[in-house]
Amino acid sequence: MGSLTLGIMKLWQKNTGSKKEVERFTIGRDPEFDILLAPFDVLGSMAHATMLAKIGLLTDAELSVLLRGLKEIYQEIESGQFQIQEGVEDVHSQVEFLLTERYGEVGKKLHSGRSRNDQVLVDLKLYYRAAIAEIVEATRELFDLLISLSEKHKKDLMPGYTHTQLAMPSSFGLWFGSFAEGLTEDLVLLESAYRLANKNPLGSAAGYGSSFPLDRTLTTQLLGFEDLHHNVINAQNSRGKTERNLSFALAGIAATLNKLATDVVLFMNQHFGFISFPDDLTTGSSIMPHKKNPDVFELIRAKTNQIQGIPSTISLQLTNMSTGYHRDLQLLKEVLFPGIEQTLDCLRMCTFMLKEIRVKTRILEDPFYKHLFSVEAVNELVLCGTPFRDAYRKVGLDIENGEFFPDQQKVNHTHEGSIGNLNNDVIQSKMEKCLMQFGFEKTEKALAALLATGG
Amino acid sequence: MGSLTLGIMKLWQKNTGSKKEVERFTIGRDPEFDILLAPFDVLGSMAHATMLAKIGLLTDAELSVLLRGLKEIYQEIESGQFQIQEGVEDVHSQVEFLLTERYGEVGKKLHSGRSRNDQVLVDLKLYYRAAIAEIVEATRELFDLLISLSEKHKKDLMPGYTHTQLAMPSSFGLWFGSFAEGLTEDLVLLESAYRLANKNPLGSAAGYGSSFPLDRTLTTQLLGFEDLHHNVINAQNSRGKTERNLSFALAGIAATLNKLATDVVLFMNQHFGFISFPDDLTTGSSIMPHKKNPDVFELIRAKTNQIQGIPSTISLQLTNMSTGYHRDLQLLKEVLFPGIEQTLDCLRMCTFMLKEIRVKTRILEDPFYKHLFSVEAVNELVLCGTPFRDAYRKVGLDIENGEFFPDQQKVNHTHEGSIGNLNNDVIQSKMEKCLMQFGFEKTEKALAALLATGG
Amino acid sequence: MGSLTLGIMKLWQKNTGSKKEVERFTIGRDPEFDILLAPFDVLGSMAHATMLAKIGLLTDAELSVLLRGLKEIYQEIESGQFQIQEGVEDVHSQVEFLLTERYGEVGKKLHSGRSRNDQVLVDLKLYYRAAIAEIVEATRELFDLLISLSEKHKKDLMPGYTHTQLAMPSSFGLWFGSFAEGLTEDLVLLESAYRLANKNPLGSAAGYGSSFPLDRTLTTQLLGFEDLHHNVINAQNSRGKTERNLSFALAGIAATLNKLATDVVLFMNQHFGFISFPDDLTTGSSIMPHKKNPDVFELIRAKTNQIQGIPSTISLQLTNMSTGYHRDLQLLKEVLFPGIEQTLDCLRMCTFMLKEIRVKTRILEDPFYKHLFSVEAVNELVLCGTPFRDAYRKVGLDIENGEFFPDQQKVNHTHEGSIGNLNNDVIQSKMEKCLMQFGFEKTEKALAALLATGG
Amino acid sequence: MGSLTLGIMKLWQKNTGSKKEVERFTIGRDPEFDILLAPFDVLGSMAHATMLAKIGLLTDAELSVLLRGLKEIYQEIESGQFQIQEGVEDVHSQVEFLLTERYGEVGKKLHSGRSRNDQVLVDLKLYYRAAIAEIVEATRELFDLLISLSEKHKKDLMPGYTHTQLAMPSSFGLWFGSFAEGLTEDLVLLESAYRLANKNPLGSAAGYGSSFPLDRTLTTQLLGFEDLHHNVINAQNSRGKTERNLSFALAGIAATLNKLATDVVLFMNQHFGFISFPDDLTTGSSIMPHKKNPDVFELIRAKTNQIQGIPSTISLQLTNMSTGYHRDLQLLKEVLFPGIEQTLDCLRMCTFMLKEIRVKTRILEDPFYKHLFSVEAVNELVLCGTPFRDAYRKVGLDIENGEFFPDQQKVNHTHEGSIGNLNNDVIQSKMEKCLMQFGFEKTEKALAALLATGG
Repeated sequence: MGSLTLGIMKLWQKNTGSKKEVERFTIGRDPEFDILLAPFDVLGSMAHATMLAKIGLLTDAELSVLLRGLKEIYQEIESGQFQIQEGVEDVHSQVEFLLTERYGEVGKKLHSGRSRNDQVLVDLKLYYRAAIAEIVEATRELFDLLISLSEKHKKDLMPGYTHTQLAMPSSFGLWFGSFAEGLTEDLVLLESAYRLANKNPLGSAAGYGSSFPLDRTLTTQLLGFEDLHHNVINAQNSRGKTERNLSFALAGIAATLNKLATDVVLFMNQHFGFISFPDDLTTGSSIMPHKKNPDVFELIRAKTNQIQGIPSTISLQLTNMSTGYHRDLQLLKEVLFPGIEQTLDCLRMCTFMLKEIRVKTRILEDPFYKHLFSVEAVNELVLCGTPFRDAYRKVGLDIENGEFFPDQQKVNHTHEGSIGNLNNDVIQSKMEKCLMQFGFEKTEKALAALLATGG
Repeated sequence: MGSLTLGIMKLWQKNTGSKKEVERFTIGRDPEFDILLAPFDVLGSMAHATMLAKIGLLTDAELSVLLRGLKEIYQEIESGQFQIQEGVEDVHSQVEFLLTERYGEVGKKLHSGRSRNDQVLVDLKLYYRAAIAEIVEATRELFDLLISLSEKHKKDLMPGYTHTQLAMPSSFGLWFGSFAEGLTEDLVLLESAYRLANKNPLGSAAGYGSSFPLDRTLTTQLLGFEDLHHNVINAQNSRGKTERNLSFALAGIAATLNKLATDVVLFMNQHFGFISFPDDLTTGSSIMPHKKNPDVFELIRAKTNQIQGIPSTISLQLTNMSTGYHRDLQLLKEVLFPGIEQTLDCLRMCTFMLKEIRVKTRILEDPFYKHLFSVEAVNELVLCGTPFRDAYRKVGLDIENGEFFPDQQKVNHTHEGSIGNLNNDVIQSKMEKCLMQFGFEKTEKALAALLATGG
Repeated sequence: MGSLTLGIMKLWQKNTGSKKEVERFTIGRDPEFDILLAPFDVLGSMAHATMLAKIGLLTDAELSVLLRGLKEIYQEIESGQFQIQEGVEDVHSQVEFLLTERYGEVGKKLHSGRSRNDQVLVDLKLYYRAAIAEIVEATRELFDLLISLSEKHKKDLMPGYTHTQLAMPSSFGLWFGSFAEGLTEDLVLLESAYRLANKNPLGSAAGYGSSFPLDRTLTTQLLGFEDLHHNVINAQNSRGKTERNLSFALAGIAATLNKLATDVVLFMNQHFGFISFPDDLTTGSSIMPHKKNPDVFELIRAKTNQIQGIPSTISLQLTNMSTGYHRDLQLLKEVLFPGIEQTLDCLRMCTFMLKEIRVKTRILEDPFYKHLFSVEAVNELVLCGTPFRDAYRKVGLDIENGEFFPDQQKVNHTHEGSIGNLNNDVIQSKMEKCLMQFGFEKTEKALAALLATGG
Repeated sequence: MGSLTLGIMKLWQKNTGSKKEVERFTIGRDPEFDILLAPFDVLGSMAHATMLAKIGLLTDAELSVLLRGLKEIYQEIESGQFQIQEGVEDVHSQVEFLLTERYGEVGKKLHSGRSRNDQVLVDLKLYYRAAIAEIVEATRELFDLLISLSEKHKKDLMPGYTHTQLAMPSSFGLWFGSFAEGLTEDLVLLESAYRLANKNPLGSAAGYGSSFPLDRTLTTQLLGFEDLHHNVINAQNSRGKTERNLSFALAGIAATLNKLATDVVLFMNQHFGFISFPDDLTTGSSIMPHKKNPDVFELIRAKTNQIQGIPSTISLQLTNMSTGYHRDLQLLKEVLFPGIEQTLDCLRMCTFMLKEIRVKTRILEDPFYKHLFSVEAVNELVLCGTPFRDAYRKVGLDIENGEFFPDQQKVNHTHEGSIGNLNNDVIQSKMEKCLMQFGFEKTEKALAALLATGG
């Protein structure tokens, strides 16, 4: 294409023929993601050092130096000063480099009884735990808003559809509430991913254990893990599996948001016109005054589809692979980390937008919707004693003769979870129960204690 | 293609132009799958009838007749006599038809306060619960075998690989045990799917509730559900979501079996030659005596890939769809039901084959493997007081000078989950704890009680 | 689950512990699909035998017997008499068995210079070619109908949407025509799959060639293949790749039908009400007279999603696999064959239904749609000489002041492919050109000649 | 998680509550990808302006100014000076902004008869064409290397496997050549994607055409497109379809590279030891001298799996969507653009590495492999006149009695595509034919002419 080449590979082409190409290719986008792992790498090292001292592979003095050095680095990470320097391969090397530069040989002792494999694994596990905690928090915020919208609009009727056809009366209370309860169920799936993330792999070395007398139970406690992957091969195999199960859980939340966004786009269509948003949250045109483009929800729809595509990509990377570490696993970060960020972003944008949603009231009073009430009318006759068949025939005839005039403001649904009895309080307790299952507090306490050790 | 046409659509072509085409197309493969739902349809109806009597929509006499009729049908299903007759649309119609044929008008009363939508939903939920129970049982059997193989072969060393390169000593005890522990983790994901399946949708009608004063808590108890989907729209939305989450869980188990099968195929390769099976379980050739084709494990690998493909297909069917029932949901059965069967089949074939596995012993005594022990040698020096760097240098020099002669029979790993300390007992308690979480007993008791009611 | 077990695996459980389990598991659903391969297996054998005679591995007399025997079997297949007998492993064995039973030892000579691998491969290739020819024919029928609907409704205006918001005037002519042109593009993808299917793998034996002096060019000509896979490993690798590329092409057609079905379901919604179908092709209810459930199109939507899921499942089965035949490949039939049938079924159901579609006319005359014409109005002013900015401001002000009264019956679009100039004739020539590219005639002639050989 | 939060969304949280959030969310990663579209946006505008002048919507003087301005911008892009300024929404706005800033009002005239939708579409099409040209070039380089390796190693025998079991003699010539021929077939799929990319969408406006008398045939010629999407709705629908078909084609190439990488990793395993690379292209360890980690090929395996996951993600974004532009389509860039880059990178890294591959010779002379020759021995007897059954029995007995001593250096395969007759020349002509089909030259000429117009 001559001068029209893409240019995207230009850097590459300059370097052909040198070992540098191999470096560029194998490092890939690691630095970008590794920086997110930095605080967790330090925490993992603090636990590992403490354990090494306990089994006699470090002296108390050495431990003390290492803990001090690691805490310094932790603070530098927190304050945004930490960087992976040019020429340093990854975050783990950077931490080790800083320790050694500042405190000498003792910095290198940290690597005893640990391989790069279980070090990365424990960093990832700690990162996923924190990521899940953030997702749970964002989900909870959206949940609270949905419940309050459900309560606020519990008397605002709207049509319910089956087969995309007008079917029965529904309500905005029911509609908002459905996503709230849906999210509680999505968190159950997320909790199962959390339980896998919340297992300690440290001490599995390269996946076949170590001849050092490691105390893996101790690092498990120090890092606030609920349990450990006991079998060391299984600990190694948890790499990939943890990512895949987390991607399933993200896909679950994404699917719920996708349905919400799909409904919003449809209900904003002018034929429906059930909901709207302030002008500055949609895009329009002065010569097409009816047009309010729901860009944010279209993009949520698209992003939640990207998220739902992640499990498939991860499965391709893992399948038909034999036991043992493969470098392939490094690339899971490229797939999953952005998925975590997208999930958070979608949750928060939903909350942001729904805070401003405007709901059309008295929709069903329009005679256009009167046939929605035919089932109601039949049921009412049945409840008053008319046999079902006769009731059905009577309503059918009324409709045929143009004599069907239902009361379109009143719907008498009383059972659990119905228009007149939304059970939002019960749904809220489900959410509370869900949140407790994660047990974030115990983990936070352990990490706080770890950070406080050693002076 | 003239006479070479496929012929697969011939039936179709005869019928063009008639309403029958629409019937053929819309019914699809339903009869094939509906027959599996039959016992659950009867149980759902028994619970619904009992509830209708409680809220006054059936007399005690009517209830009694219905329960008797339903139990008869249940026994016919159990004894294999039940069929969906020609011209009857589905299993639900067949049950209703039999009741009405035998007991008159009362048979039709069963449909009050229920729509086809929530009836199908409850059938599916009950079916998935039972399917999950079977999968758990089959998983448990494989788990037990893996634990006993791990114990039996705990002293049989083998190489461990990283990057598909010889890396460190491992053992068959470790290898078998890794899949055992892996399965306990897969069951956690399955349990999260079970919890979604174990929620009662009955009473949600077509997804917007009913004006009858239904007692949904009662049917929840009668059918042994742990909870109900309270919000009725959410109950309807659980269709698809239940299937997708179950497909995630099947994919989880499938991935573990896929890795096992991949390893087996590799280890049966003649360059490895670590394991073998009796001749009648493999295929060979008299002129290629070294060839033992691992067909069963190749097919397990392929089937577990099919299973791992299900989530993607289900997601395509569900995404970008608005709230409310869509006929699309009917086709999830075609995708998921065979996946359940395949998962069971793969689990059982694994158990069947592994019962006969033969493990090569004393593999690592071959000098070919001596470099596997270099890390061991370094660590041993470190434990005896040599600084790591010096130990590393010494072993490196020994190797370079051809003076590296490790003891290839001895590996001293003592920490949790290592070659010398497999923790199989701990892994077994994980499995026990897992199994208890499902709470199958409570469910079984409820269904037994329901079947015993009314006469 | 006691008496509530699924029962789906009962047969299996009876047989545990015997070699029969391995047989059941490895044969799987092969017989079901193999019967479709029967005519192609015979054709492949006729070509192979002819070639063996040419290179001196069969005498003319032997060839004559074999061709006669094979033609008999071909006729039995055509007349529906051919079956795979109990205990015979597959279609290939059945054909060989019949030949040997009827004509003695010569039947076994057919296997010289051929392995089961390249025999299956050539059968599959011939089957896919025929399948593609049927799909092309069905696509062409739908295309013709779409073009005639486009012409019939070229003056029937409808709204065009962007962001699911009313945007601009469109027409049914444009809408129907868009799917017609879309199908011509989908056939280009299908043709690329056809070209891969239309390469001869025969002679590649088990994937590493043969020491017999085979004449692969001859079988290529006899079977009407366009070319051969020259490199024998590549011939073997085409298994899986052929299936995957065909699944891509099916997914392409499926996506077009999916969009058509999605539009139909939306346009049948009562808020739109743009199209309808005769009552006997939809489902409704006497008490909900407005409800016309578009079940057929919902199922087309779902089925086209199943078809779009196939590439992902096939990729999982193929990826990370080393060179050489793996038994896994056998299971591709289970995934792809039903996909072929579904694609044909969806194409034909679309044609069947669209023959009866009823289009609402004069939609845009309703003042509800007047803002659709604002862009038209601006453009008209521009064409008459008003600068764009002024024109835009004027129309904006008219709208604001309630003085915007466009002529909602007239749209003056004249450029290529626009409402007033649909270019359906050009689109039809694209289709003609597409069809010619496949070159089905040449293939048909070759097969007819092959069937006519040898008396 | 207190101080352990991820921090990844911090920027976000600062802005909550403002319209800026909507902007951040809707713009997303566009600037990153838009810069790649810049040269194509200019070319599209040059063609559009030329056409506007021809139909009288621009004067010759205006055209002259616009062409000059656009060429200036094109040169700025080429020299790396072009940037999307802070506050400018996208690349299209930036170009328009520069024109207007430099040449006044005439810059705004460019937008007549064009909407942002068809402008983006044409930019994307031109970008994909250029991307495909680069991929073809990189494929061709790898192909040439594979052919030369195949020729170089045509006499170097290696084992061939079926079922991952030793099966028959093969050769490195055959193995390298198989990927070469495979790539020619992958290019056929890519060419079908190219044909879809090579159709002009310009003039379709927002997907419903324009009331301006556009000359779409003219812009088609000016931009070197092979054809146009005639129907304007279909032109709009090509967005997404073009991306999906291109992703299919990338997945095709990726699958071939995946198999190559899988083989390489396996053959580098010490049990095989068939191939190796210079030390500086692998990673190793001084205490594990046998270990040469094939990181580059593991990463190629992983990346090609990511690429194979793209079609599934794109399908999720497109399915169940009605006709017309949806903002969702914007996000396809995030999925596909990196996939294009990854494909190029993998192709080039393969070439880079294979240039250095070292092949072990005389592998099959080891008695370990002697049974590979049993089929050869049988065939040889058959060719000398022994009936197959007798030959088979004799070789079987020889093996059983330990009297089987084949000549392990000689394999007599002579037919097309076999060890002794690789047909690499034929395969090279396939590649040549393939390359010609794309017709890149015609396109390049058209673009060169366009860039040369107007002074």
